Amino acid sequence: MGKGRIEAFSDGVIAIIITIMVLEMKVPAGGSLKALIPVLPDFLSYVLSFLYLGIYWNNHHHMLHTVEKVTGGMLWANLHLLFWLSLIPFVTHWVNLNPFDPVPTAFYGIVLLMAAIGYWILQWRIIKSQGPNSLLRQAIGSDWKGKLSPVLYMIAIGMSLISQWAGYFLYTLVALIWLIPDRRIERVLGGRRFTE
Amino acid sequence: MGKGRIEAFSDGVIAIIITIMVLEMKVPAGGSLKALIPVLPDFLSYVLSFLYLGIYWNNHHHMLHTVEKVTGGMLWANLHLLFWLSLIPFVTHWVNLNPFDPVPTAFYGIVLLMAAIGYWILQWRIIKSQGPNSLLRQAIGSDWKGKLSPVLYMIAIGMSLISQWAGYFLYTLVALIWLIPDRRIERVLGGRRFTE
Amino acid sequence: MGKGRIEAFSDGVIAIIITIMVLEMKVPAGGSLKALIPVLPDFLSYVLSFLYLGIYWNNHHHMLHTVEKVTGGMLWANLHLLFWLSLIPFVTHWVNLNPFDPVPTAFYGIVLLMAAIGYWILQWRIIKSQGPNSLLRQAIGSDWKGKLSPVLYMIAIGMSLISQWAGYFLYTLVALIWLIPDRRIERVLGGRRFTE
Amino acid sequence: MGKGRIEAFSDGVIAIIITIMVLEMKVPAGGSLKALIPVLPDFLSYVLSFLYLGIYWNNHHHMLHTVEKVTGGMLWANLHLLFWLSLIPFVTHWVNLNPFDPVPTAFYGIVLLMAAIGYWILQWRIIKSQGPNSLLRQAIGSDWKGKLSPVLYMIAIGMSLISQWAGYFLYTLVALIWLIPDRRIERVLGGRRFTE
Repeated sequence: MGKGRIEAFSDGVIAIIITIMVLEMKVPAGGSLKALIPVLPDFLSYVLSFLYLGIYWNNHHHMLHTVEKVTGGMLWANLHLLFWLSLIPFVTHWVNLNPFDPVPTAFYGIVLLMAAIGYWILQWRIIKSQGPNSLLRQAIGSDWKGKLSPVLYMIAIGMSLISQWAGYFLYTLVALIWLIPDRRIERVLGGRRFTE
Repeated sequence: MGKGRIEAFSDGVIAIIITIMVLEMKVPAGGSLKALIPVLPDFLSYVLSFLYLGIYWNNHHHMLHTVEKVTGGMLWANLHLLFWLSLIPFVTHWVNLNPFDPVPTAFYGIVLLMAAIGYWILQWRIIKSQGPNSLLRQAIGSDWKGKLSPVLYMIAIGMSLISQWAGYFLYTLVALIWLIPDRRIERVLGGRRFTE
Repeated sequence: MGKGRIEAFSDGVIAIIITIMVLEMKVPAGGSLKALIPVLPDFLSYVLSFLYLGIYWNNHHHMLHTVEKVTGGMLWANLHLLFWLSLIPFVTHWVNLNPFDPVPTAFYGIVLLMAAIGYWILQWRIIKSQGPNSLLRQAIGSDWKGKLSPVLYMIAIGMSLISQWAGYFLYTLVALIWLIPDRRIERVLGGRRFTE
Repeated sequence: MGKGRIEAFSDGVIAIIITIMVLEMKVPAGGSLKALIPVLPDFLSYVLSFLYLGIYWNNHHHMLHTVEKVTGGMLWANLHLLFWLSLIPFVTHWVNLNPFDPVPTAFYGIVLLMAAIGYWILQWRIIKSQGPNSLLRQAIGSDWKGKLSPVLYMIAIGMSLISQWAGYFLYTLVALIWLIPDRRIERVLGGRRFTE
């Protein structure tokens, strides 16, 4: 069974999720520069959610690249991941409307945590199906990012209840960990996780 | 004629349907944990509809896998199936707004029933086109799930008029039948229906 | 240059157009059977627009099948066709809100007419690029449907100003001409237009 | 690493962006011909944004055509481009609501400018990865359009603050530069930029 359709379907869902979030950004009330100020948090949360979905698409792309035979279990693990990703616009919208309430900020992190778990399950299914010489297992190496992220999400969720800024800071930090030090730090640490 | 585009188009439509339902989930009014309670039924119906669309995509994926030559009849049968699937967000939304009215609950089931019939027509078209040694006919085996589901939908539609809970219970049950016992029960019953 | 992306992009756009129309169907105000009555015109116009987009996708699918080399002109002709198709949800929505006003009913037809012209331009571009032995020219035969439809649209647009029912009747008739008599009548008339 | 998914994902995102803009076009209030007049600016801005997205898709299509090996840098440069393109419906909507305010008109241009920079970065990444005999470098030639556009955007952004009409005129001019003189002028100037 080819992997073409699991890729195409995931691409479709992630493309839609990443795009509909803009639909939910409220258009500034008026044409002045000042009218842009209340839209700024919306914009920043859109950027953060866009980054997360971009990172997921990127890693998904690389992960699926190692797959040769798609199993039924992978299809369901993939749908499970997409389910949590599809909730990102929902929590993004909720956070936008209540940026300084502990519960929405924590829920943003819970959805990120569940997506990370969903990604981990899919990864585990693929590694399992590839047997002892799993190409994916070699590619992810120590997978320190994959192991660190859920810990940081959990800290962020807890922190959100006290300080929303701390929560947002940690959510942004995890995104940056995935984005920035891909080449140098990772080579040192041995966990390449599909860079280039 | 290749099957690439019928797959791509179906993937696109199902990906959009599965994602736009989140757009229709009402964002909690306020940032408290209590504000999440009225959103819970929305969330549960989203999960159920997501499951149904995931099951359809999954089975569609496997079914098309057996197709070598796409006929005009298949294209139309496929569009007919997609039409009923596209109504799932509509009835999901209606049910969310009126969770304890008999008519919306019954209509949810009617759309599921029509989608099941649409799926059956597409399956029948493919089997017919594959001739006496149809690969698809062998793959579906006794097709006990395909035969049981419409019966359960019809019971659920009738029950919905008396008790909405009974309707929701049966709709969930059909989804679980398709999800859970794929490996063991099916092998016993002889109807593998594309597992793995 | 391969035709994969022109197909993928068109599939994506048509899939989105066909699906977002449901988003614009107003959910019944209340949970009774009576609440469904005012939604009925919406539903019927959704069915009609779904049929039109299905027909376009279907014919587009077959037409592109004959293409081997994609030219820049085809890309733009295709975008032009997609532009008019993308206005179908807009006019469908307008007609739904004002079903018995001459102007929206006529505009529904104008968009259909422009889409038909867009389709014709794309077809002409492809035939031109294929040279004297154009496979597409042979496939469309006399193209009586392609020639009759714009005439019927123009009559329908004119009639809409007097009687909206006459307009709707003709719009439905054109859809049925494309749908129903594909096999028998067309073989007689010599214009197969990609049937099977 | 194949380029299939980067194409599929970009097609998906651009297809969604180009289509959701129609969702935001306000349906005329009433069924008269006069009711269409206030919708006209919406329609014109939709046409302009559709043109821009069509041009981007077209050029993206041709640019990716020269790529053989997709690198991680390209994936991120592509996501960056898609980010700015995804803001086009947002600024289109803002401009529609405030057509004669300097700030929204200027922001429309800023998003176009950022998208042009995003395109340029992706182009530069691809050329860099292709080494000294880069096929893409040859294909773009002098790239006079790619160099002229950002200059015109910057002039347009400045002009928008004084006269919105001047801004709209220049935004339209850039679109036309990309659309119209593809064959003759470009051959003379030596910069073919993927024509045909």
